[in-house]
Amino acid sequence: MSAKLKLDYSNEPAREPIFVVNSEQPFNAEPTTDLLTKFFITPTEWFYVRGHGPVPELSAASHFVEVEGAVNKPLRLSLEDLRSFPKKIVTAVLECAGNRRNEMSVIKKVKGLGWYHGAISNAVWGGCLLKDVLEAAGIKSKAEGARHVEFLGADVCEEDNGTAYGSSIPVDKVLDLNGDVLLAYEMNGEPLTRDHGYPIRVIVPGYIGARSVKWLKRIVVRPDESQNYFQQRDYKLFGPQVDWDTVDQWWDRASPIQELNLQCGICVPQAGALVKPGPLTVSGYALSGGRRIERVEVSLDGGKTWHVTELAQEQKTVPNTYWAWCLWRITVDVTGPVEIIARAWDSASNVMPENVAPIWNLRGVMNNAWHRVPVNTSKSAKL
Amino acid sequence: MSAKLKLDYSNEPAREPIFVVNSEQPFNAEPTTDLLTKFFITPTEWFYVRGHGPVPELSAASHFVEVEGAVNKPLRLSLEDLRSFPKKIVTAVLECAGNRRNEMSVIKKVKGLGWYHGAISNAVWGGCLLKDVLEAAGIKSKAEGARHVEFLGADVCEEDNGTAYGSSIPVDKVLDLNGDVLLAYEMNGEPLTRDHGYPIRVIVPGYIGARSVKWLKRIVVRPDESQNYFQQRDYKLFGPQVDWDTVDQWWDRASPIQELNLQCGICVPQAGALVKPGPLTVSGYALSGGRRIERVEVSLDGGKTWHVTELAQEQKTVPNTYWAWCLWRITVDVTGPVEIIARAWDSASNVMPENVAPIWNLRGVMNNAWHRVPVNTSKSAKL
Ligand SMILES: [Mo]
Ligand SMILES: [Mo]
Repeated sequence: MSAKLKLDYSNEPAREPIFVVNSEQPFNAEPTTDLLTKFFITPTEWFYVRGHGPVPELSAASHFVEVEGAVNKPLRLSLEDLRSFPKKIVTAVLECAGNRRNEMSVIKKVKGLGWYHGAISNAVWGGCLLKDVLEAAGIKSKAEGARHVEFLGADVCEEDNGTAYGSSIPVDKVLDLNGDVLLAYEMNGEPLTRDHGYPIRVIVPGYIGARSVKWLKRIVVRPDESQNYFQQRDYKLFGPQVDWDTVDQWWDRASPIQELNLQCGICVPQAGALVKPGPLTVSGYALSGGRRIERVEVSLDGGKTWHVTELAQEQKTVPNTYWAWCLWRITVDVTGPVEIIARAWDSASNVMPENVAPIWNLRGVMNNAWHRVPVNTSKSAKL
Repeated sequence: MSAKLKLDYSNEPAREPIFVVNSEQPFNAEPTTDLLTKFFITPTEWFYVRGHGPVPELSAASHFVEVEGAVNKPLRLSLEDLRSFPKKIVTAVLECAGNRRNEMSVIKKVKGLGWYHGAISNAVWGGCLLKDVLEAAGIKSKAEGARHVEFLGADVCEEDNGTAYGSSIPVDKVLDLNGDVLLAYEMNGEPLTRDHGYPIRVIVPGYIGARSVKWLKRIVVRPDESQNYFQQRDYKLFGPQVDWDTVDQWWDRASPIQELNLQCGICVPQAGALVKPGPLTVSGYALSGGRRIERVEVSLDGGKTWHVTELAQEQKTVPNTYWAWCLWRITVDVTGPVEIIARAWDSASNVMPENVAPIWNLRGVMNNAWHRVPVNTSKSAKL
């Protein structure tokens, strides 16, 4: 019988007023979606914020990252030590597994923060490759127990009675020459801000934001997955038949969510917008866990016919390393009230599912149904 | 003005009577779907056959594979030479991009062979890694022009006026330590049969069957994609708005299909089967271009509720190397006429789309809508 945890939120960083705030303590907020895709690189102060407790107060000068577990030479690394590894710059989108959760709640109430489609942002991360660090630590073989890499933060989480946030990813993602897993100390060319993990965070490109652990304190190379709450009792996707009465038997039967699914969002116009009849520019984002986006399409007739949008996507020479989001836009002709629908195709010929109801799940995660935005027309509208 | 090509089909190999034959000349056939998933490894004589012309008559003793283009040391390799490289065994499913095309034709006629859901099979391939061969040939860097690897067959194709079948894949897929691209000389422990590429074929795990070129004669390392008909003017997926009047402007705007999408098929019972009311075992296959299958679900109520099936899947230690299909089964209770629906989820939280109509495309490729099989009940039925 545990009393509700009393955590100290008296020293939170200042934040911009542009956010839609889902929770003040811990602070969870997304930028308004009309601003979200204004820039290919999200300004740091607009980047969505996902926290599970008070923002830790850490000093770069006295902070260390421990590397332990299935390694021959455990390490204790300062920021200066990490800076001595070759520097790597990666542009990567982070997306919360709960992005677009509100659309699931319309079908049937789900548990979790009420995100719209702005729990996603794109930044340039600078740091060293975790691969280099683990090799310096003499990582053991899989047979010797190096199969998962666990990350533990310096924070204290509301959800699990004050334990630190933790997560793990498969060792192959880290050791992959094109995996690009970073220990990042820079975001958009500046030191990390407190909200985004100062002084050091993990960046796992192509994976849900939950694996890019902030305020990184310990790295444990392990034979099994992290047993942390956020790996084992959160961020799992069940079938629509699983409810609160039956969920206990399901936690161990589903895998933790890791790679991001195919996704797109309409950011302009916003839902319910009043627009002038005539040409209307529609724009938004798309991504697919590292896969190239082949095409984003927009329909004004419920999905019977589709218009191909213009796509701005990074040029990559290595397949399946499209870590950044891409932005798309199209001008369509709007004559009256209409539902604008967008869907994306990825380089493996996958397309987003049509409806939310058949992918509804208790935790409201990974909603990637066709994105639908209704608008109304008026001759006196500004848009 | 070219006269219809006259090709010689007088020396075709013998084939099993179990096939559903889509075309005799060239021979294209799929096993009946109730046999398809009887075994995890498809017997060679049941493996679907896809050809574009007469089966070449080649002799292992006198056949050579040329390796040329952006390499420092062009090679001419006999089967014996290929056997001198380390042997690698890979279990991999091959699936035709046109698998399940018939379900698209129901919506609106498409062009292509009328495949049901049996243009897919799973085998154990033995050969050498193409990576090792290209390294022996001194493959150049990307900057020096080694960006795509083209494969050319010894066959003569109906579609393109008698040119050889050709295709290419990105060099990164070949050089990836976990890419597993083979020059295969064995199928299920025996030398390749003539129908499956004797004496040497390519196996590109996780890619559409069209890239696993049979009767391999030449490998060209190139700066650009293959310009062959089957890379540039076939195996592309357009939006549903593209028709025969407008397709010419689209060929160069779509990428060649490479990786396989998320897919599953119900093999037992077959569509239209008469079954006894009561418990009914439903089974089939699932795959996702190398991604792990997280779950296959079956619905008897149009997708409102889903039952989780039992999954037989290879255990892999490296993510995204699930090259084999997996088989699934479930026993459900059938009380009357019903549509059995199956869908799969992959390890990146993607799910198959609900309906065929919104993914309909002119070439009828990559249909991976929920698979639907109607059955009727009768107390005197055998199943
Ligand atoms: Mo999240
Ligand atoms: Mo094919």
